[in-house]
Amino acid sequence: MATHKVILDLDTGIDDAMAIAYAVAAPNVDLIGIVSSYGNVLTPLSAQNSLKILELLGQTDVPVFLGESHSSTTDHFDVMPISAQIHGKNGIGEVSLPVAKRQPETKSGVDFLIESAHTYKQDLIVVPTGPLTNLAQALKRSPEIQDEIGNVTLMGGALTVPGNVSPVAEANINQDPQAADEVFESRLNLTMVGLDVTLRTLLTKNETTQWRQLGTAAGEKFADIVDYYIDVYKITSPHLHGCALHDPLAVGVALDPSLVTTLDLNMFVDTTREMWGRTIGDPARLTDPHPNVSVALTVDQKTYLNRFMTYLSNLFAKN
Amino acid sequence: MATHKVILDLDTGIDDAMAIAYAVAAPNVDLIGIVSSYGNVLTPLSAQNSLKILELLGQTDVPVFLGESHSSTTDHFDVMPISAQIHGKNGIGEVSLPVAKRQPETKSGVDFLIESAHTYKQDLIVVPTGPLTNLAQALKRSPEIQDEIGNVTLMGGALTVPGNVSPVAEANINQDPQAADEVFESRLNLTMVGLDVTLRTLLTKNETTQWRQLGTAAGEKFADIVDYYIDVYKITSPHLHGCALHDPLAVGVALDPSLVTTLDLNMFVDTTREMWGRTIGDPARLTDPHPNVSVALTVDQKTYLNRFMTYLSNLFAKN
Repeated sequence: MATHKVILDLDTGIDDAMAIAYAVAAPNVDLIGIVSSYGNVLTPLSAQNSLKILELLGQTDVPVFLGESHSSTTDHFDVMPISAQIHGKNGIGEVSLPVAKRQPETKSGVDFLIESAHTYKQDLIVVPTGPLTNLAQALKRSPEIQDEIGNVTLMGGALTVPGNVSPVAEANINQDPQAADEVFESRLNLTMVGLDVTLRTLLTKNETTQWRQLGTAAGEKFADIVDYYIDVYKITSPHLHGCALHDPLAVGVALDPSLVTTLDLNMFVDTTREMWGRTIGDPARLTDPHPNVSVALTVDQKTYLNRFMTYLSNLFAKN
Repeated sequence: MATHKVILDLDTGIDDAMAIAYAVAAPNVDLIGIVSSYGNVLTPLSAQNSLKILELLGQTDVPVFLGESHSSTTDHFDVMPISAQIHGKNGIGEVSLPVAKRQPETKSGVDFLIESAHTYKQDLIVVPTGPLTNLAQALKRSPEIQDEIGNVTLMGGALTVPGNVSPVAEANINQDPQAADEVFESRLNLTMVGLDVTLRTLLTKNETTQWRQLGTAAGEKFADIVDYYIDVYKITSPHLHGCALHDPLAVGVALDPSLVTTLDLNMFVDTTREMWGRTIGDPARLTDPHPNVSVALTVDQKTYLNRFMTYLSNLFAKN
C-alpha cells in the first residue's frame, strides 16, 4: 500500500486530539504537518495543544503551523461558549499536559498548504476538521492547488440530519460559511464527513477504561481528556449514549473511503442569514454528470470502531 | 410478475394527471381507486379532474373518492397562488376536457383507504402525491393499517436539496406537516420520492410533440396540458430546461424500486415555525438498526424516461 502524505488542519480540541492519534497510529501515513485553526479554541492555543499531543505520542518531528486566526469575513474571533463547554477552556478537557518543548514553525499554515500541494500533488490528502478558512485562503492565493491536491476529506456539515449549532448549521461550517462555500464550489476532490456519519460512531467509557488500564502516560491522559468529552455529551446529547468521533472519523475515511457509503452531489454552502451555514445540494446542478462532493451517508461503525481502538490502544501502549 | 393493488391519492394537478396515465399504462397494475386531496386545486375539483382524465384514457371503471378538504390543523384551504400558476386555475393547464359522466363515490376516501388496507394487506401499494392528510386520518382512525399496507411510496419532501416553497419545505409536505410527521413516524413501510430525485427526471416539448403526433384525443390533450406545465417551468425554474416528473416518478418507483438508490433513515417532519415542513433525519435514532423511511437519492433517469414514454405513448395511441 502506498504511503499517504497527510496534512491535518485542526482546531485542537478533544476530537482533534484523537484525530492526531489516529493519523500517527495508522499504517502507511506520512503525517507531513499540522495546520492550526481557530474554532474549539483560538489558533495559537490550537497549535500548542497539537504540539503537546504530538509530544505525548512521541512524535517530535511533525511540524505544526499557524493558520488564520479568524473567519474570512471577520477581523476577530471569540470561542463560542458551547465550544468551551464541550472541549474545556484549554481545549483538552482541562487536562494538564507538559508545556511543549517545540514551537510552531515560522512559515504560515496557508503557505505550507500551498507548497505541499505543489510538491506532493495527487499524493497529498488534506483533512480539515475545523473551519475551512485556511483552505479557502490557500485556494484564493493559489487557485491551481484545486487541481493538484489528491483529496480533501473534511469533517463538517450535515446533509441528512439537522446541524448542531442551529437547525441547519454544523459547527465547523458555521464558523465561516463563505470560506466553506468557496471550498465546496471549487474543483477540489472533496469528501464530506459530516454529522450524517459522525453521530453514528460513538465512544463510551468502556473504551477509555481500556486506555487507562494500559498504565502509560498517553493512555491515562487520553482517557482523562476523552472522559471529559463523554461527560459533556451526557448533558448536551443524552440520546447518543456516548461521544461522537467527529474528527478521527474524517481521518479514517480519508485513509480508507470504503468505510462509508457516499452520495455524489454538487453542493453549496448557504450564506444567507436565514440558512447560514447549511450544506445542501444545488438543484440547478443535479443532472451534472460529474458532481464534485462525495458526501458520506452511512458508515461501517463496527469496522471503524474496532480499527480506531486497535490503532489508538497500540499507540498508547508504547507511550 | 404479481399484480399490484394500487391506490393513488392525488390533488390532480398536471403531474398527477401523468401519474394516473402511468398507473393505467403500466403492466401488472390493478388501479383499485383514486382518493382525492386538496393542494394543487380544491378536493372536489381534484376528483373531477381525476374522473375526466380517467375518461380520456378510457378507464371508466376506476372509482374516485373524496378525501379531506383541508389540513389536519386548519378548517379551510385556499389554493396557493404558486399552485394556480403552475397547474392553471382548473388544475389541468386551462385545457378544457368534457364534463365527466361519472361522479365521485359516496364512500369517503379515508374509509376506502382503511377498507382496502384490511382487504389487500401486504398486496396494497398506496401512492400519495399530495398532502398526507388522508393517510394520517386513516392511521388515526385505524392504527392497525400501518402494519397491513405493503408499501407507501409518496411524492413529497426534500432531503439533499432545498424545498420548493421555502428553503426547507417541499409543497406537499408544507400543506400539512403535522399529518406528514404522523405518517413519517408511524410503522408504515415508507418510500420517499422527493425533490432529490424528481428534479432529476425532466420532460421537454420533444416528448410532448411525440404525443401530439399520435393524432388521438388523449395524445393531443396530454400534450396541451403538459406543454402548459413546461412553459411555466421555463419561468419558475429556467435552470432545469424541462418540467419535473414529480408524481409519475413516485408511481414508477412504487412499481419498480430498482429505479432509484435509497438511504434508509429514521426521519421526522419539522413542525416548528422556523423549519416548517422540513423532512430530515432524526439524530437520536441514527443507530437504530431498522430505520422506517427509504429515501430515494438518485434515479436511473434514462431507464425511467424511456419507460415513461413507452407506457404513455402506447396508452395515448389507443385513446
